[in-house]
Amino acid sequence: MKRSLAQFMPILDWGRTYNRQTVSSDLLAAVIVTIMLIPQSLAYALLAGLPAQVGLYASMLPLIAYGIFGSSRTLSVGPVAVVSLMTATAIGQIAQTGTIGYLQAAMLLAFMSGAFLLLMGLLRMGFLANFLSHPVIAGFITASGILIACSQLKHILGIEAHGENLPVLISSLISNLSDANLATVAIGVPVVLFLFWVRSGLARVLRAVGLSAYVANLIAKTGPVTGVLVSSFVAYRFQLGEQGVALVGQVPVGLPVLSVPDLTHPAWRQLLVSAIFISVIGFVESVSVGHTLAAKRRQRISPDQELIGLGAANIASSFSGGYPVTGGFARSVVNFDAGAQTPAAGMMAAVGIALAALYLTPLLAWLPNATLAATIIVAVLSLIDLSILKRTWVYAKSDFVAVTTTIVVTLTMGVETGVACGVLASLALHLFKTSQPHIAVVGEVPGTEHYRNVNRHQVVTYPSILSIRIDESLYFANATYIEDQIYELLEKKPTVKHVILMCTAVNEIDLSALEVLESVNHRLMDSGIDLHLSEIKGPVMDVLERTRFIEDLSGRVWLSQHQAEQYIIKHTQ
Amino acid sequence: MKRSLAQFMPILDWGRTYNRQTVSSDLLAAVIVTIMLIPQSLAYALLAGLPAQVGLYASMLPLIAYGIFGSSRTLSVGPVAVVSLMTATAIGQIAQTGTIGYLQAAMLLAFMSGAFLLLMGLLRMGFLANFLSHPVIAGFITASGILIACSQLKHILGIEAHGENLPVLISSLISNLSDANLATVAIGVPVVLFLFWVRSGLARVLRAVGLSAYVANLIAKTGPVTGVLVSSFVAYRFQLGEQGVALVGQVPVGLPVLSVPDLTHPAWRQLLVSAIFISVIGFVESVSVGHTLAAKRRQRISPDQELIGLGAANIASSFSGGYPVTGGFARSVVNFDAGAQTPAAGMMAAVGIALAALYLTPLLAWLPNATLAATIIVAVLSLIDLSILKRTWVYAKSDFVAVTTTIVVTLTMGVETGVACGVLASLALHLFKTSQPHIAVVGEVPGTEHYRNVNRHQVVTYPSILSIRIDESLYFANATYIEDQIYELLEKKPTVKHVILMCTAVNEIDLSALEVLESVNHRLMDSGIDLHLSEIKGPVMDVLERTRFIEDLSGRVWLSQHQAEQYIIKHTQ
Repeated sequence: MKRSLAQFMPILDWGRTYNRQTVSSDLLAAVIVTIMLIPQSLAYALLAGLPAQVGLYASMLPLIAYGIFGSSRTLSVGPVAVVSLMTATAIGQIAQTGTIGYLQAAMLLAFMSGAFLLLMGLLRMGFLANFLSHPVIAGFITASGILIACSQLKHILGIEAHGENLPVLISSLISNLSDANLATVAIGVPVVLFLFWVRSGLARVLRAVGLSAYVANLIAKTGPVTGVLVSSFVAYRFQLGEQGVALVGQVPVGLPVLSVPDLTHPAWRQLLVSAIFISVIGFVESVSVGHTLAAKRRQRISPDQELIGLGAANIASSFSGGYPVTGGFARSVVNFDAGAQTPAAGMMAAVGIALAALYLTPLLAWLPNATLAATIIVAVLSLIDLSILKRTWVYAKSDFVAVTTTIVVTLTMGVETGVACGVLASLALHLFKTSQPHIAVVGEVPGTEHYRNVNRHQVVTYPSILSIRIDESLYFANATYIEDQIYELLEKKPTVKHVILMCTAVNEIDLSALEVLESVNHRLMDSGIDLHLSEIKGPVMDVLERTRFIEDLSGRVWLSQHQAEQYIIKHTQ
Repeated sequence: MKRSLAQFMPILDWGRTYNRQTVSSDLLAAVIVTIMLIPQSLAYALLAGLPAQVGLYASMLPLIAYGIFGSSRTLSVGPVAVVSLMTATAIGQIAQTGTIGYLQAAMLLAFMSGAFLLLMGLLRMGFLANFLSHPVIAGFITASGILIACSQLKHILGIEAHGENLPVLISSLISNLSDANLATVAIGVPVVLFLFWVRSGLARVLRAVGLSAYVANLIAKTGPVTGVLVSSFVAYRFQLGEQGVALVGQVPVGLPVLSVPDLTHPAWRQLLVSAIFISVIGFVESVSVGHTLAAKRRQRISPDQELIGLGAANIASSFSGGYPVTGGFARSVVNFDAGAQTPAAGMMAAVGIALAALYLTPLLAWLPNATLAATIIVAVLSLIDLSILKRTWVYAKSDFVAVTTTIVVTLTMGVETGVACGVLASLALHLFKTSQPHIAVVGEVPGTEHYRNVNRHQVVTYPSILSIRIDESLYFANATYIEDQIYELLEKKPTVKHVILMCTAVNEIDLSALEVLESVNHRLMDSGIDLHLSEIKGPVMDVLERTRFIEDLSGRVWLSQHQAEQYIIKHTQ
């Protein structure tokens, strides 16, 4: 019983060895992450179209829940950019931003996403995330970053602009450009420039004045908080609200009210597909960060347990006035670099955020939205990486097509359609490649028992033997193609009396392919040609032995290609 | 120019060598096929919910068009059971059977289906049909046969019954059973029994009285015509129409009026998906028959040209008052067995059908619908083959799941959903299998240079070398799974200093997999273990050489597994 419980609650594992040294490491990391999280949480709530404090609410209980159920030691869970954008897109279709209905829908979305993740985890379906290829993920993140950055320009300019895809968003920005508020621009542009400098130049300056790289990098992470404090003070001092600068304004002080999300909400059907997309994308982002960080310390994470941890975090978010969360890249890296040893660091950060919600929210009244938008823009520009286009172009055209499809569709038709088309394109390309496999005629590399492609190597062949290596499993999608290729190769070699299929790359023969092989066998038999198989693997042979195919075969099944050719040459000359 | 025209019009090829001997063979086949086609065409039109004469119309110009453009020498094109059922399902949603709108929709459907087939042919997309696996096709045909047979029971019983899936159809039949018309049953049941006997016993009797098997089989094919003539005479003699027996009734005499299908018909959007399904299913049925027959005479068909031939046939059908057609199994086999040499046999059969439409249609006034239904039932029962269930169960569970999914969904949710779910299930199962591939630790088969699985063969291994054969291409769906497996195998063998990945079955390494290999390489390097690759194929090596991976590899790339182990053992002991 204890074993099985510990399986689902990693805290029972790491909690037993928790000691004073670990607690001080975790505490330091928690302080640093909290300082970074406060502006980021507020900003991502804004991106999701929600009141700023919702970002704080989504950074408390979810961190506790993940700390109990998650399998990564250092992942930092909370609001992240891409999921916030997807939340805005999903809810934007059914409610007006700023309304109670919008907030309720966000909580419902978090609940549905959490329930779906939990279900996937209990069914051990974590492997499904593997079907998102790296090019699709990279393309999706890049395109989302572009969309997010553009969506925040309106806050920097102080204008209205809407649109879920890039062309609409840009034309909306351009047509409203004349309404730009100069005071807002005067706050927004300097903050963007300041944050860029903090990110790219500050650490170098600090190192130059003698600080260690570690301390310099940590101080650089406080840039957003500095931006928040300074711009709030400027807004207060010059009463910028009266100049038309949008401010966060009065927000409720204190902790979120615990409540049960409204599961009878009529919008749940409309949100279902979005909840699934948000779950999958959030899971994939989280697992890839978790894997990377765990590998650095020779730890491992369990994808199925991550599903349970993220599911619990999202359900906790939905019960405490939050919205969908996942493990974020930037925040997890900060947590890791600051020395977090266990998920307790995340739980301590949750306490830090709670203190901020209790005592710092009055200060938000003067915080310009432009500052939060600047935080988002600078954060997401690091997500944009168009080098994947060049990398895939050089490496393989199919990967290039997958990444291009994902980027173009995400930018023009939105995030959900984009990722769906990317996955479908990469699967279709893979299936297409396997449906027209590489087929090589092989011969003996002289002086060895090794057989290679006659077109690439100097090899020995015999006029009476045609040895064909099929570089793919035989299954329905390629069975008739392979049949045609065998006949074509035979037409070019009229002296052949033995065809040997070298099956080193044949990992499966399904029923459709078996029927094709049976028909090839009969047709060759009619022409007085024997069909042999060599180097069939154990699992494939197990299946063939359940049929009459081996008995009916005109030739034989050989352990190795070398044995086959040696025997045939010796006994037929 | 002539070359490229002949490419698209096979008639220019076979027509040049057409001679007196071929013409007499074709003529005989045409007479026999015509006799068989007349009742079948009428019956399938009834199945499609169309007036009986539409079946005749769909058996004239389409045969001429296929004769000009089709690549099979012996395929017989016209109305077939499955496509007729799909037509009824598609049009049943948008028009009432018996109305002008229904007929117009059928012609539009034929046009759309023809246009889609032509387009696929010109784009050379015939390979797409390979994605329908044999289990899916077999399951679909079987389930369609059951649906068709059940849908015709109402005509045998003289009752009303509707439903596009089996549960609805059966409950509809049962609830109306009390309305059964005795006179109809008295015609229908004897005709069914007679046709069964003709099919199963008559040929044997004829052979027993001394006729050759060839003649006996041909006479047996005239069974349906005999049934039509006798039951029509009985209906006329006993005035069965007055007893409530449904008769075909007065139909227009003569040839179809040529007309352009109404392309502005508002239903075209609703029919689009059905037109695609009908095209694909019709194409697959036709190509599999065409392949089988061509193989018997050492001929070949071209799938892309078949698309063009069938496209032309459907467009011809739509212009002459017909409905979607394709190459039928039964009729093509009869054509082949009767000695047809060229598509001219089909053209001659078209003339035969035209003569029937001109001079025999008055006789249809007395033909009971029950007779046509009996013809359909006996014809489709030969399509039903549940042995595929047992065959796949024994052979491979994945094939079994594909066939079961197809049958169950087709019976309960209709033909289009059934075939779509079957294809998706078979693709998903294939992808799932490749996402968790078989991985074997290999060692040297003593006395050879051949390496096999340590668990299946007596082989030689060394404590410092771990040789792993991965039985699948490395791509995004299995990259992390393979990474985990390598680490797990390494944990069990702490003495290992060299890991050799034997890549005989690796037909591709995509970018996602390359990144995993890079990370495995670095992690092993940190632990002082060298990573080697052996037996990489040419096309895979070409791609790897575009990256820095080979340079960064801690070990080396070996031509053969044997060279790798020999070298390492010699230089490290």
